[in-house]
Amino acid sequence: MFYIVEIFGTAAFAISGVLVALKKRMDLFGILIIAFVTSVGGGTLRDILIGVTPVSWMTNIVYSYVIIGASIFGIIFRSKLNYLRTSLFLFDTIGIGLYTVVGVERGINAGLHPVICIAIGTITACFGGVVRDVLCNEIPVIFRKEIYATACILGGITYFLLKLLPIEGNFIFIIAGVVVIVIRLLAVIFKIALPNLYNNQGD
Amino acid sequence: MFYIVEIFGTAAFAISGVLVALKKRMDLFGILIIAFVTSVGGGTLRDILIGVTPVSWMTNIVYSYVIIGASIFGIIFRSKLNYLRTSLFLFDTIGIGLYTVVGVERGINAGLHPVICIAIGTITACFGGVVRDVLCNEIPVIFRKEIYATACILGGITYFLLKLLPIEGNFIFIIAGVVVIVIRLLAVIFKIALPNLYNNQGD
Amino acid sequence: MFYIVEIFGTAAFAISGVLVALKKRMDLFGILIIAFVTSVGGGTLRDILIGVTPVSWMTNIVYSYVIIGASIFGIIFRSKLNYLRTSLFLFDTIGIGLYTVVGVERGINAGLHPVICIAIGTITACFGGVVRDVLCNEIPVIFRKEIYATACILGGITYFLLKLLPIEGNFIFIIAGVVVIVIRLLAVIFKIALPNLYNNQGD
Repeated sequence: MFYIVEIFGTAAFAISGVLVALKKRMDLFGILIIAFVTSVGGGTLRDILIGVTPVSWMTNIVYSYVIIGASIFGIIFRSKLNYLRTSLFLFDTIGIGLYTVVGVERGINAGLHPVICIAIGTITACFGGVVRDVLCNEIPVIFRKEIYATACILGGITYFLLKLLPIEGNFIFIIAGVVVIVIRLLAVIFKIALPNLYNNQGD
Repeated sequence: MFYIVEIFGTAAFAISGVLVALKKRMDLFGILIIAFVTSVGGGTLRDILIGVTPVSWMTNIVYSYVIIGASIFGIIFRSKLNYLRTSLFLFDTIGIGLYTVVGVERGINAGLHPVICIAIGTITACFGGVVRDVLCNEIPVIFRKEIYATACILGGITYFLLKLLPIEGNFIFIIAGVVVIVIRLLAVIFKIALPNLYNNQGD
Repeated sequence: MFYIVEIFGTAAFAISGVLVALKKRMDLFGILIIAFVTSVGGGTLRDILIGVTPVSWMTNIVYSYVIIGASIFGIIFRSKLNYLRTSLFLFDTIGIGLYTVVGVERGINAGLHPVICIAIGTITACFGGVVRDVLCNEIPVIFRKEIYATACILGGITYFLLKLLPIEGNFIFIIAGVVVIVIRLLAVIFKIALPNLYNNQGD
């Protein structure tokens, strides 16, 4: 089940990369690379920082096929993707929830401190989008406008709070992931954003 | 022989970095760093992803000397480099061919899937130019205009097709490298580029 | 003693990140990330290139607390930071001196060539600022305007020259660090910069 969720999340990340790359008038190869980087960037940085090499996407070929397939789908149906906007957003959000908790657990397996594990979960979920934006010569969108990383951090904290209770590991995994997803959904629905501190600078 | 080719390729990459950095009005140190990153960036990411550390340029000091020498040469003769444009392009193209095949073989040595090995070869050849452009605050040129990575990918595919035939390893190495070089040369001579999908978006 | 210096250096780097992020109108999370990356970016790249994983800030939680604390301090007192400009510059400069020598010694411990060790020291001190600027969509300032990396390189050279003399290790550490700090201070006081080669291009 998790595996299927991960596949959809990976595909949604890839298509979000395709959309940004199209806007930047990249060629076919550029689009594919941006899709790839958006999908695997977070997990790759996580693996490099922890020291798990070769990194995950190199040892499991399925990711590459999913990303290439999703990119081709995204390119062919590029003018129709607007109709899928809601589905893509949902997949993307589910992907973030899943990636966060996977990242947190990888940190725990490496014997790291809870604060670091939460950072790793957030990196896993968010860094792909950061590299996508840097390669497209934009200031990463998650640094400016959206409750995105904040949802991951709160999900990570939930994970460790639940671990203090006598709850089974799989449930902790699911609940923490759902917390990420729900916070992100609520933030988008109610247009909540973190305060921008610039305007009151110089008070 | 390969070694001499590699030296020339490294030097050509370094000088291409010098030229971009000069255009961006960087100081001496900035120029040197961009030259360095353009030359070793691809191999460095490859080594990090596979898990070969310390990375290559750290354990073989020759690269550093070649890059520093090429950068000084490029800076001193910066107003004459136009006359060397064709030679530099040739060295650069040969460098790409060589780096691609070296990268593919490193992937094979790490026991990775052919698709991943081709990706590694392409990363080795192309990533230095990507970092160069990101540090210079440009959208990487290979994502937009040139048959560059595509040549690497086709060279990598050639490598694995030839491996199915009873051909000696060194010949496979050379033929695959030459495929990269020839495709790149033909693309530049005949001004072939990958289709840009943006213009027909919204059909 | 070194430890206290390192804490102050880390905090100064974090606050320099906060200042740049505020100017770019990032939200709270963006500010925190830029602060973090500015502080630990150099050491992280160093550890990844040498192959020391999990990287330093993951195994020592103190860094995270210092950075989070310094960021909160910087955000709260953001309109007053101008009064601290000189102190921040001093901490930052001391941090660079310290990071450079720490980096050089990590390279020596990994058995690398002196030229590479000096490069590692410079990376440790400078790369955080480079990533900060890339994430903020700027050409890294150290490539353009300041004697910054040059100070690190000269400090690294000093380190290896002193090693030829019969001087005790701790003194070499301190003298090399002080060389970095003094060169940086003199450069800023006397407004010395590396020559910009662009203007005479085409002589």
